Amino acid sequence: MLRDLFGTKNRVTFPVSGTGSAGMEAAVCNVIEPGDKAIICINGVFGTRMADVADRYGAEVILVEVPWGQPIDPADVKKALDANPDATLVGIVHAETSTGVLQPMEEIGAACQSHGALLLLDCVTSLGGVPVEVDKWGVEIAYSGTQKCLSCPPGLAPLTMSERALGKMRERKDKVKSWYFDVSMIEKYWGSDRSYHHTGPITMNYAIREALRLVFEEGLKNRFARHALACKALQAGIEALGLSMFAQEGARTPTLNTVAIGGNIDDAEVRKALLHDFDIEIGGGLGPVAGKAWRIGLMGHGAQQANVTYLISALEVIFKKLGYTDRVGDASAAATRVYAEAIA
Amino acid sequence: MLRDLFGTKNRVTFPVSGTGSAGMEAAVCNVIEPGDKAIICINGVFGTRMADVADRYGAEVILVEVPWGQPIDPADVKKALDANPDATLVGIVHAETSTGVLQPMEEIGAACQSHGALLLLDCVTSLGGVPVEVDKWGVEIAYSGTQKCLSCPPGLAPLTMSERALGKMRERKDKVKSWYFDVSMIEKYWGSDRSYHHTGPITMNYAIREALRLVFEEGLKNRFARHALACKALQAGIEALGLSMFAQEGARTPTLNTVAIGGNIDDAEVRKALLHDFDIEIGGGLGPVAGKAWRIGLMGHGAQQANVTYLISALEVIFKKLGYTDRVGDASAAATRVYAEAIA
Repeated sequence: MLRDLFGTKNRVTFPVSGTGSAGMEAAVCNVIEPGDKAIICINGVFGTRMADVADRYGAEVILVEVPWGQPIDPADVKKALDANPDATLVGIVHAETSTGVLQPMEEIGAACQSHGALLLLDCVTSLGGVPVEVDKWGVEIAYSGTQKCLSCPPGLAPLTMSERALGKMRERKDKVKSWYFDVSMIEKYWGSDRSYHHTGPITMNYAIREALRLVFEEGLKNRFARHALACKALQAGIEALGLSMFAQEGARTPTLNTVAIGGNIDDAEVRKALLHDFDIEIGGGLGPVAGKAWRIGLMGHGAQQANVTYLISALEVIFKKLGYTDRVGDASAAATRVYAEAIA
Repeated sequence: MLRDLFGTKNRVTFPVSGTGSAGMEAAVCNVIEPGDKAIICINGVFGTRMADVADRYGAEVILVEVPWGQPIDPADVKKALDANPDATLVGIVHAETSTGVLQPMEEIGAACQSHGALLLLDCVTSLGGVPVEVDKWGVEIAYSGTQKCLSCPPGLAPLTMSERALGKMRERKDKVKSWYFDVSMIEKYWGSDRSYHHTGPITMNYAIREALRLVFEEGLKNRFARHALACKALQAGIEALGLSMFAQEGARTPTLNTVAIGGNIDDAEVRKALLHDFDIEIGGGLGPVAGKAWRIGLMGHGAQQANVTYLISALEVIFKKLGYTDRVGDASAAATRVYAEAIA
């Protein structure tokens, strides 16, 4: 089921025994040897983290950066690849949880393929919410988490590695620094050898099995449409409130919606009211985006009409109470109209 | 509760977001810098693993080895410390899951304290089943797993680090190689800073909380007595069957009982019959002990009369069927007598 979700035929596709960041570490540490060049794309927290992880494992890190809220420009990746034809890896985040940007992947995948660099994709906030096409895009390593669009408790990090990525791992001169995340050992335990490696978190394995079963019971096409619709309704409501989205248009993930916090709005006050009076928690901005954007997750089971309309309704009540608006109801109406149109 | 269980006042005492081997990796990687000398004691699988982990993180590893089934001789540790007065670390396993040896710790702890080396203790198969006295023994770093004597699902690795161990971590010149296990970052997330690090496996945190509550509801003294009694009854039964224990007398952990497989007994045949006809799984020997010993876990909830008597009874039936004995009942009687005497 993980293979179908990742859009891959990779034999080595399994959940790493840790949460999403463990997936990032496993993805990086198995293929990076000290001195390898790694091109890491940064447009938010998780690209920054990937650069840190690659650096720790001894990579010479080359950064491709754009302001937070924008997608990475494939031309910049090509430029970095041209300047570093011996680069081992290009690391990039598919859906940046810190900014709400969804990265278009086809061009970057093609560039990596033609240069022979391994493309590593962080799918933590995309897998199960939007299409992920590992094989089609030429992604050689991808990982995710369980608690985002799979609606499973946190505790595992789905990982997939192509034969090319495994080849890089097998040809390395030193051992993988991390014993726990050493896929060359894990694949022997998980394969027919059954060479004992580490005890897996078995209750989590049952949990992800059930979560994936539910994903395929719904069907990927239906699931992605549900996420897209919830996002569209949310956005209609947000805009009717007089606010605008933070992430660049055309590059927004429906799973994590960022809202630019307008001039007179008190970030903390609104989030406090949402939490205390309405039992709704939305995320504040991280890093350079702190105070500038809200992060509204619509992931997995959460991407549904009831959540969208309740949040928009709550925001209208709060905005009225705090004196940000006199009009109440327009935003709720706008969100509901999106759902009505989808049925018509 | 973890502090009470570890016998420590260490502020940094928390469950690492991975299974037991993740605890080993976190324990090693935070204090070991490339070139540091690490004295690792090996008398089974997990000492061997610890040496591998230390080596991967760049330690110059000095081995103290004894044959599997024996405890480490404190004199050998002292000798290694004298020969390597600048050693950073002494790593040792409290209860070796592969051999059933329980390591006496007081002398080794004192030796490490007088030499200034950090003592690192693997408590995976001991914590919650036998006394662990981190502070009293002078242990500076200890870790465990959840699925052994705590009877919690696997998925977390309780870890405790003293201020001295944290000091070594803070003074290191390079970053900890592993981002996921970097305690210098985790402690800021877990502390009042709340600097986001990684998403924890929250359902597992609820699970360990409940498991620990049950441990302290029973009381440590009662719990250790229950483990000791189950072990004593098992051993009486095993000996009445004409078999003997594998681990050296006086150095046996009650939590993992190893039985030497006598001359005419077919290891695989007996274990197959136990599993298929009686739904009992015992462990085969690992590494050099394969085919030579059985490993019988009596851990946490499992350390109880019903399990001991059922196993001994099953072995008697199997031994009779396979023609290893004509006498049936002596072993069951012996095991039961131990429980009767405990009540008298």
